[in-house]
Amino acid sequence: MTNEAANNRSPSRSTLSKAERSRILLAVDEAFEKQVAFLSELVRCASLRGQEAEVQEIMEAALHERGYLVDRQAIDTALIGQHPAFSPATVSYENSWNVIGTHIPVVAQGRSLILNAHVDVVPTGDPDRWQDPPFKPTRRGDWLYGRGSGDMKAGMSAAIFALDAIKAAGLELTASVQIHSVVEEEITGNGAAMALASGQTADAVLIPEPTDEKLIRANSGVIKFAVTVHGTPAHPREVSSGVSALEAAVRLIDHLRNLEARWNEEQNTRPYFNDVENPAALTIGTITGGEWIASVPSSCRFEGRIGFYPGDKPQDRMKEFEAFVATIAADDPLVQRCPEPLVQWVGVVQPGYTLAPGSEAESVLAQAYLDANASDGPSLEACVMAAYLDAALYTVHAGIPSLVYGPIAEKIHAIDERVSLSSLRRVTKTIALFAVEWCGVRRASDKNPAAVI
Amino acid sequence: MTNEAANNRSPSRSTLSKAERSRILLAVDEAFEKQVAFLSELVRCASLRGQEAEVQEIMEAALHERGYLVDRQAIDTALIGQHPAFSPATVSYENSWNVIGTHIPVVAQGRSLILNAHVDVVPTGDPDRWQDPPFKPTRRGDWLYGRGSGDMKAGMSAAIFALDAIKAAGLELTASVQIHSVVEEEITGNGAAMALASGQTADAVLIPEPTDEKLIRANSGVIKFAVTVHGTPAHPREVSSGVSALEAAVRLIDHLRNLEARWNEEQNTRPYFNDVENPAALTIGTITGGEWIASVPSSCRFEGRIGFYPGDKPQDRMKEFEAFVATIAADDPLVQRCPEPLVQWVGVVQPGYTLAPGSEAESVLAQAYLDANASDGPSLEACVMAAYLDAALYTVHAGIPSLVYGPIAEKIHAIDERVSLSSLRRVTKTIALFAVEWCGVRRASDKNPAAVI
Repeated sequence: MTNEAANNRSPSRSTLSKAERSRILLAVDEAFEKQVAFLSELVRCASLRGQEAEVQEIMEAALHERGYLVDRQAIDTALIGQHPAFSPATVSYENSWNVIGTHIPVVAQGRSLILNAHVDVVPTGDPDRWQDPPFKPTRRGDWLYGRGSGDMKAGMSAAIFALDAIKAAGLELTASVQIHSVVEEEITGNGAAMALASGQTADAVLIPEPTDEKLIRANSGVIKFAVTVHGTPAHPREVSSGVSALEAAVRLIDHLRNLEARWNEEQNTRPYFNDVENPAALTIGTITGGEWIASVPSSCRFEGRIGFYPGDKPQDRMKEFEAFVATIAADDPLVQRCPEPLVQWVGVVQPGYTLAPGSEAESVLAQAYLDANASDGPSLEACVMAAYLDAALYTVHAGIPSLVYGPIAEKIHAIDERVSLSSLRRVTKTIALFAVEWCGVRRASDKNPAAVI
Repeated sequence: MTNEAANNRSPSRSTLSKAERSRILLAVDEAFEKQVAFLSELVRCASLRGQEAEVQEIMEAALHERGYLVDRQAIDTALIGQHPAFSPATVSYENSWNVIGTHIPVVAQGRSLILNAHVDVVPTGDPDRWQDPPFKPTRRGDWLYGRGSGDMKAGMSAAIFALDAIKAAGLELTASVQIHSVVEEEITGNGAAMALASGQTADAVLIPEPTDEKLIRANSGVIKFAVTVHGTPAHPREVSSGVSALEAAVRLIDHLRNLEARWNEEQNTRPYFNDVENPAALTIGTITGGEWIASVPSSCRFEGRIGFYPGDKPQDRMKEFEAFVATIAADDPLVQRCPEPLVQWVGVVQPGYTLAPGSEAESVLAQAYLDANASDGPSLEACVMAAYLDAALYTVHAGIPSLVYGPIAEKIHAIDERVSLSSLRRVTKTIALFAVEWCGVRRASDKNPAAVI
């Protein structure tokens, strides 16, 4: 970049030569098979919730090897309930920690950057329904299959190999760059919350979630609940003397569809959400009820999530949800025969965010996108994602502009998850060029530390 | 009894003196606190499925102590699928065995008898919802509380203490009497099936299930199923690309209510079932679905039971059930988007039975009932039970007349299960007088072995 001060946020292009830019892109190409091998190694780790230790050890080694300052960061549960970036925790974090790798520049003149990616993955469903075992990374044509391949170990590899390519091109970033390898994105966001609460900050964060190479303009706030319904157990010979907790729970879920519809209707008054299908998306993820095949179930518990719009406080939506359940408990003829259902908040409770158009960060990314692809091709598209993203925490609780942009992936959270490798390559290149423009570079060979490009 | 041959089935009264009859009744009264203590000891054992060893060891010791020939009888799983009394097994029976105690008479001239009771109990539900811990037998007024107190450890105590009272009155039964302390009644009936398949037979079986001191005239056949529905998992950001296995399962359960209604409608054409509320009683006992709070569930499994009428083959009803599920799978717009639901048979698949009015066994029981209570009081009532009973196996597969008659109990399979102790005392007396009349007796002091009363 030019010698402009980091905070100047100039949209002007760096004086990086075309040849130097080409060298970076070539370096991505040259290391790409190594990148796929690294990604495969990550996919091989079944880093389900609470089981992220193995993958984080790989991350730690990979960052050490590259000369980053590496910190293993435990989640300080004392902060939960204190710091607003945290959501309720229902499990121990003893074996779940973040890994933070930091590039400390010789010359610090550019804009600092956080590259965030989460290592936790969701369960696979029945492995027999997969073409290949879900934790056996399998390459078929342009696709790499495996749980977590798209969401979002590919993104993690992009962040690391983008920075590698810059170095391989003989360049050195002239601003602090942190790699946040975090846990818990799929449930609470408490990994990213910890990274944030520890005081880690930067001028921008880029998160290569699988976005089909689009930039996220806005996302939903999400609250995750567990509802427990108690019934009155009974013997099948006298069914009418009991109230099935299962039937009451199903009735309650039916009613909750009305809450979803009501929240969905608000989309017309909210920027960006006009065309989103089912922005509130009530999904019931799990249900467990009853304990004996021939008894009327005494209790039933279901867990799920519901979305809402950026700008809304999750606390208000939680209250609305609880009041809705209380009304059903009072009015529905079946549910009213049960004790009042218990609502618990068991995962993320966070607002959504928007990335206002016209930011410097977006403009640098859009140019990098063009430079990494065909300069005369289509521009970077923006879109809305009706799901929780760790980006929300960085934006809402720390005011850091968040760029969520990553590769094409399919079947995330589903069977036969896969990521497009050609897309991953393009994304890696875009991130490399973005980092160069955002952070600035100097020639690593240059003896004069002030010799910034 | 008189010197009539055992097979003569005479309804005439024995020549047992009134004083001797009173001595038996008095012996029940005198031992009743001991009986309650024994019952409490049984209730203290959490003899859930697969955990019956402790209670069976107590039973074994109790029968040994009384001089019965005692046999520990393992379930021979090789017979399952071969002998029609067995239902499918889904668990190991390594720690679940029957205990068979046999009284071998010095003089065998009367009619033989099986007293059957099951020791397995169903789960408690949330123990905190009980007034007292469910496996802490608690006496309050006329009631003894505890899981299994009514269903059916009280009945077990009645069988044992009825025979004790006869002995205490100085009498000795002149026919073989077996006590079948069986497992698995609450799920498959495979305990009683084993007792039967081992060749144990008798001229009648009496089972003191909690029937409110009524005699069971007929009961339902029952089949127990598990249905697994697979959906298409998806991320909440693209709900419509998935099919929730949970929603499909709930839809399927809704449709099954129509099958229940159709089977219930048949009641008008079936003897004894006219006035029974919900004779088919489809109950869904358990449900488990999904594996992640923020995924569209990929699978959902529910278990339940449905009843039908005596005389019907369970195999026919199973076929009808399977065909019904297949039709829903083909026709319902949501369920048809899933692979065909898997129906498994995971518990009892047995026909119901009837006890034809006018049997000798019933008439002897009815007289014993009057003699044990007030002779001028109401007669023994008969009723229908729309639930599985081990009695069905003895009747249907071995042609043994089955008398199911036992104490008043409340909240079986529910919270705060309890049995009436005054009722238990009456039932114990009735069983004692029944056994005397059915099997015949001689005075234990009599040196002449042929001196039958």
